[in-house]
Amino acid sequence: MSIVALRWLDPPAGPAIELLDQTRLPVSETALTCTTVPSLVDAIRRLVVRGAPLLGIAGAYGVALAAARGDDVTAAAQALAQARPTAVNLGWGARRALGAYLRAAADPDQEVQRGAARAALREARSIADADEQACAQMAELGLALVPAGARILTHCNTGSLVTAGEGTAFGLVLAAHRAGLLTMCWIDETRPLLQGSRLTAYEAGRAGLPHKVLADSAAASLMAAGQVDLVVVGADRITADGSVANKVGTYGLAVLARHHQVPFVVVAPVSTIDFGTADGASIPIEQRPPEEITHLAGQRLAPAGSDAYNPAFDVTPPGLITAIVTESGVIQPVTRGNLRVLSPET
Amino acid sequence: MSIVALRWLDPPAGPAIELLDQTRLPVSETALTCTTVPSLVDAIRRLVVRGAPLLGIAGAYGVALAAARGDDVTAAAQALAQARPTAVNLGWGARRALGAYLRAAADPDQEVQRGAARAALREARSIADADEQACAQMAELGLALVPAGARILTHCNTGSLVTAGEGTAFGLVLAAHRAGLLTMCWIDETRPLLQGSRLTAYEAGRAGLPHKVLADSAAASLMAAGQVDLVVVGADRITADGSVANKVGTYGLAVLARHHQVPFVVVAPVSTIDFGTADGASIPIEQRPPEEITHLAGQRLAPAGSDAYNPAFDVTPPGLITAIVTESGVIQPVTRGNLRVLSPET
Repeated sequence: MSIVALRWLDPPAGPAIELLDQTRLPVSETALTCTTVPSLVDAIRRLVVRGAPLLGIAGAYGVALAAARGDDVTAAAQALAQARPTAVNLGWGARRALGAYLRAAADPDQEVQRGAARAALREARSIADADEQACAQMAELGLALVPAGARILTHCNTGSLVTAGEGTAFGLVLAAHRAGLLTMCWIDETRPLLQGSRLTAYEAGRAGLPHKVLADSAAASLMAAGQVDLVVVGADRITADGSVANKVGTYGLAVLARHHQVPFVVVAPVSTIDFGTADGASIPIEQRPPEEITHLAGQRLAPAGSDAYNPAFDVTPPGLITAIVTESGVIQPVTRGNLRVLSPET
Repeated sequence: MSIVALRWLDPPAGPAIELLDQTRLPVSETALTCTTVPSLVDAIRRLVVRGAPLLGIAGAYGVALAAARGDDVTAAAQALAQARPTAVNLGWGARRALGAYLRAAADPDQEVQRGAARAALREARSIADADEQACAQMAELGLALVPAGARILTHCNTGSLVTAGEGTAFGLVLAAHRAGLLTMCWIDETRPLLQGSRLTAYEAGRAGLPHKVLADSAAASLMAAGQVDLVVVGADRITADGSVANKVGTYGLAVLARHHQVPFVVVAPVSTIDFGTADGASIPIEQRPPEEITHLAGQRLAPAGSDAYNPAFDVTPPGLITAIVTESGVIQPVTRGNLRVLSPET
C-alpha cells in the first residue's frame, strides 16, 4: 500500500489538510488534521510534514485552505512561506496558489471571482499532480546513472513521505530496485532527527528493498571498503551556480564520495532550483534548537548546560556533484550554464 | 574539581575500588564501591568503568583487591581478564599486577612474601601513575601543534573518564584551555553510543571549557565555514605503518580535515602502538549489535525488521594524519620509519 503523506479533505470533513504525522513514524501511523493555517504552520515547524517537494504542496494547499475559510489569503501565504526559512518550495507553492487565487479574485467575471478559492485549490492539486509526474520522470532519467548490482547510499528521507509521488532520490532507488539493478540500499540514520532510520527505513521496508541503516559517521569506512557504488540525495534548494542545500551531512558525503571516486548524484525537481540566488554562500542556513542534539524523545543525552551547534542543512558546491537529475533532464556536469537551460526565463 | 574515574580505598573504608558509574553519566554522578572481584567484574561488564587505559588500571587494581582480601589471586586475574574478552588492556593490567604478586610471593625473603599483596597494589599504582604521567607529557608535547585561539574538534571520549590522568586527545584540549589557546571545543556526539555528547560534554562542562556538541555529520560544514582549526582524536590501536584504528567516524573526519586543510592529530600513548601488526588492512574491525543503531535507551528508532551496519571502529591511513602525539615524542610526518623510533626493539 502506498504512503500518502498529505491529503486535502473537502466538506463535510473539511476544508482541511490531513497529514501523516511523520514525527511519530515508524512507531505509529497517526493522521493530524489541520483546519486552520496557523495549525498547518505549526505542523510544518514541528516537521509533522517535511521535505522540499511536499512542503511546496503543503504551502499551496495551505493557501487553498485560507481561501476556502475566507481568511486573509495573502497573509496566510506569507505565514506559510516563513514557516521554515531554508525551504524555498514552501514560498513557491504558497505563491503559486496565491497567484491563482488573486488572478481569479481580480477577474471582471463575477463567476470567476466567486470561484477564487476553488482556483487556489485547483492550483494546489495541479502542483501535486505535476510533482507525482516529476518523480516518475526523474526516476526514469536517473536510471541511466545506476550501474548493475548497485549498492546505493542515501541520506535523509526523500520518498513518498516528502513528495506526491515515489520520491526524488529514493524514487530513483525504488526504480533501480524494480529494474533489478539494486543490491543494497545503505541508509544513513541522519542525525539529529533520524529521518533515515525512522522514515527511509520505513519506506524501504514497505517496498521490500534490501537495506541497512548505519550511523552517519560509518559511511566513510563503508566507501573505503568499496561497498558504495553511488550516493544519491535530494535537495532543499539549488542555487543558480548548482550549489545544493540539503540535510546536514550531505556535504560531508559529497567530500567523501569525491575522495573515494564514488559518483554523487542529486535528484530534485526543477522547482527546487532557485535561479534568483546566485550561489551557495547566499543561502541562509536554518539553525535548529540545540535540544535536537542534547535530548532524544524527551530524554537528556548531554549534561545540563551543554549547548549544541545544530544547522539543519549544509551546502554542497557544484564541483563535488556528479549530476543533478531533474524531471526535465540530467545536468552533467553541474555548471551555471548547464543549469540555466532549466530556467523559466530561457 | 577533577574527575576521578577509579579510586583505591585503603582500610578502614577498604580494601575496595570506588568507581564513578559511567552508565549513569551525565544525569547522575554516582560512586559504586567494589569490595570483591566479582562485583568489579560485573561493573566492568556493565560499562560502569570503560576505556582502554582505564580498563588496564582496573584490571591491575582488581588483582590487588584479590590479594588484599586473601582470595585466589591467579583466579581473580583470570576472571578480570575475561570480563570483556576484546579489551586487551584488561588482561594486560591484571597480568602485570599478578606478576608482581607472584614474584613477591615466591621470594625467599619471608618479609617480601608477606608483602605480596602490597606488591600487587604498588604495581597497580605504578601503572596508574605512568598513565597519568603519559597524559601530562602528551598534553605538553601536543601543545606545540595548537594555534592561538584554536577551535578544536574532537570525537568520542578520551579524557579523565578513560585514563588515570587528564586524557589523551581531551587532555590536550584541556592543556590548550589552560594555556589560553582554546576558543572552542567542538564535540562530535559520536553515534551510536554518544560518548561525545554524554561523556566528553560532561568532562568539558566540569572543566569550564567553551564547548558545543554537534551531530557527527555537521562537522563537514563546520570545517567548510572555517570554524575548525584542529581535529584531535585518540586511538584504539596504531599499526606499524601509522594506521590508526579508532571510534567509527574518525576516518571520515580525517578525509574532511584533509579536504579543508585542517590539521588532523592523533594523541595516544606508546602502548597503543602495535608494532606486530603491519598495516591498517590487518586490523580486524569489531561489528557491534544492530540494536545500537536501531534502538536508543530501549526505545525503537528504526522500524521492526530493519537491519543495521554497525562497525565499532574505522581505520585512518597514515597519509591523512598530520601527527601522532605520544608521551615519548611527536611523530610527524607519520611514516613507518618515524614510528619505529618508538618501538621497544630499537
